[in-house]
Amino acid sequence: MQVNAYAAPAAGLPLAPTTIERRDVGPNDVLIEIQYAGICHSDIHTVNGDWGPQPFPVVPGHEIVGTVTEVGTGVTRHRVGDRVGVGCMVGSCGECASCRNGDEQYCVDGMVPTYAGTDRDGSTTQGGYSTHVVVDADYVLSVPEGLDPVAAAPLLCAGITTYAPLRKWNAGPGTRVAVVGLGGLGHMAVRIAHALGAEVTVLSQSLKKQEDGLRLGADAYHATSDPATFEQLAGRFDLIVNTVSAHIDVDAYLGLVAVDGTLVNVGAPAEPLSLNVFSLIGARRSFAGSMIGGIALTQEMLDFCAEHGIGAEVEVIPAEKINEAYERVLASDVRYRFVIDTSTLV
Amino acid sequence: MQVNAYAAPAAGLPLAPTTIERRDVGPNDVLIEIQYAGICHSDIHTVNGDWGPQPFPVVPGHEIVGTVTEVGTGVTRHRVGDRVGVGCMVGSCGECASCRNGDEQYCVDGMVPTYAGTDRDGSTTQGGYSTHVVVDADYVLSVPEGLDPVAAAPLLCAGITTYAPLRKWNAGPGTRVAVVGLGGLGHMAVRIAHALGAEVTVLSQSLKKQEDGLRLGADAYHATSDPATFEQLAGRFDLIVNTVSAHIDVDAYLGLVAVDGTLVNVGAPAEPLSLNVFSLIGARRSFAGSMIGGIALTQEMLDFCAEHGIGAEVEVIPAEKINEAYERVLASDVRYRFVIDTSTLV
Repeated sequence: MQVNAYAAPAAGLPLAPTTIERRDVGPNDVLIEIQYAGICHSDIHTVNGDWGPQPFPVVPGHEIVGTVTEVGTGVTRHRVGDRVGVGCMVGSCGECASCRNGDEQYCVDGMVPTYAGTDRDGSTTQGGYSTHVVVDADYVLSVPEGLDPVAAAPLLCAGITTYAPLRKWNAGPGTRVAVVGLGGLGHMAVRIAHALGAEVTVLSQSLKKQEDGLRLGADAYHATSDPATFEQLAGRFDLIVNTVSAHIDVDAYLGLVAVDGTLVNVGAPAEPLSLNVFSLIGARRSFAGSMIGGIALTQEMLDFCAEHGIGAEVEVIPAEKINEAYERVLASDVRYRFVIDTSTLV
Repeated sequence: MQVNAYAAPAAGLPLAPTTIERRDVGPNDVLIEIQYAGICHSDIHTVNGDWGPQPFPVVPGHEIVGTVTEVGTGVTRHRVGDRVGVGCMVGSCGECASCRNGDEQYCVDGMVPTYAGTDRDGSTTQGGYSTHVVVDADYVLSVPEGLDPVAAAPLLCAGITTYAPLRKWNAGPGTRVAVVGLGGLGHMAVRIAHALGAEVTVLSQSLKKQEDGLRLGADAYHATSDPATFEQLAGRFDLIVNTVSAHIDVDAYLGLVAVDGTLVNVGAPAEPLSLNVFSLIGARRSFAGSMIGGIALTQEMLDFCAEHGIGAEVEVIPAEKINEAYERVLASDVRYRFVIDTSTLV
């Protein structure tokens, strides 16, 4: 099956329309007609070659929402007509301790990424900037009725990436959570942490987006460019979720963490970070990292978001604006996520 | 009350005999006749000035075991004749969240260190290299009958420093624990982790102390100078307790940590450490720090050690050998803790 798509032909080149082949629907596969695909910063890193060589041409996109149009003979979990989603992974070994624990993203064999990865049949995966995709039913999520499909697309990456550490480190009533950075990930973290019942503080470079932050559910908003922030909030937070992939002063942020608290990075700067171990020892603090989330937790997150009316704030674009959108993401000029209307891939 | 002691007169100078003043026994105080005082690497760092200026003369020693010879009118917890211990702290505010949680070592006002600290009455604290000490009863531990007092002394610092993270990160049956470094702290960590029921691996520079490690309770012993160690043990440990204060390759050790596992430092190198955040994100790992332990937990540790017949392996020395012992600690020439027989302070 040939389908329309947008692909990066080589590292650093603009994306352009193309057609790609989708495999036949196997017994455990689902064919999805894609409606929306979010643009994640990872897409840009990947096609720019920031993360090493890639199997070009690459069709990015791992925030996918669409409708099931065909299912394999063995599929019971999804039916034709269902609204479904696909996130950052479309496969894993299913047998290792991580897979058995529902942490498929930490599969010892390596999870199969939704694009630019090697599928279990040896083919190269191609992502959501396309009209259709065929995915193993076990990696297809149900998008609840209550969710607006366009606002749901970014939940498949930005949503689960922030939901997973918030749940893992017990954000909830009585806990104080700070979110560093109010971008695609950060604005989801604020909404989800607020809905979980935590007291939420945004730590952003400036106060430019303060109004948005408070509207999204933050209880407080501080500028990290103001040194007073680090004095005022010393030892305050049980959990800080750092959504910024740029270099940070780890010791300064650890200084904001309470005894037994955690600073968790969901993004990774290319360069190593340095920290003074006294920042950890002085209050039994942890510096941690978290990467997306397992399939069961992603479904839990979608159900949670539907229950609490949480979606991403999005700017919908036609496919022809993808390259322009990439420029704007790099300039932080989006509130808060671009989503491609894939019906424009004609 | 004038008592005999050994003090460092100034940074970097050898310790020498002296006399110091101990305060009168207040209503909540306990007067202890010291029998044994362990030599901790911290003592050496402090008197060398590695940790900044100190209120010289400094009498080190925070691994103290002795007998109660007088109690204040308000003391109910200890009686004359009891065998007791004093660890790294002799005071804290008692009112902050940390103190109320039994984590007095993380007191927001700062705990009062057993020596070279400022006591709550404004005086400078002096440690255990002396014949007597007066301590607030709330910071005095009971040393159970079953413990050999000389082997118990190092429990007050080396014991609790390793017991606390092992308990906090749930070392026990079914968990795999690695201990980095087989010195004063490391040998306690091995014994305690083994007694807690964990599978214990020692990671040491060489295999020189392998026989000791296995005798102390380790199930396996690997040399970190052998690169194969890092391949063979990749992702193996739920918890790594790093007792080495020197610089380490954090990424290499994080590579040995399982999904959701923790590398915890109980020592702090003077220089910052750097790490690649991908080492954390790739398996939801944590890099943490832990500092001694609260009073209630220290008592729990002493009771646990008595129950399991755990003490430190010690070399008992007279006071006149303190400076020589310092040299040997710096040369790692001790198995595994020097303890001063304070009856020699005449």
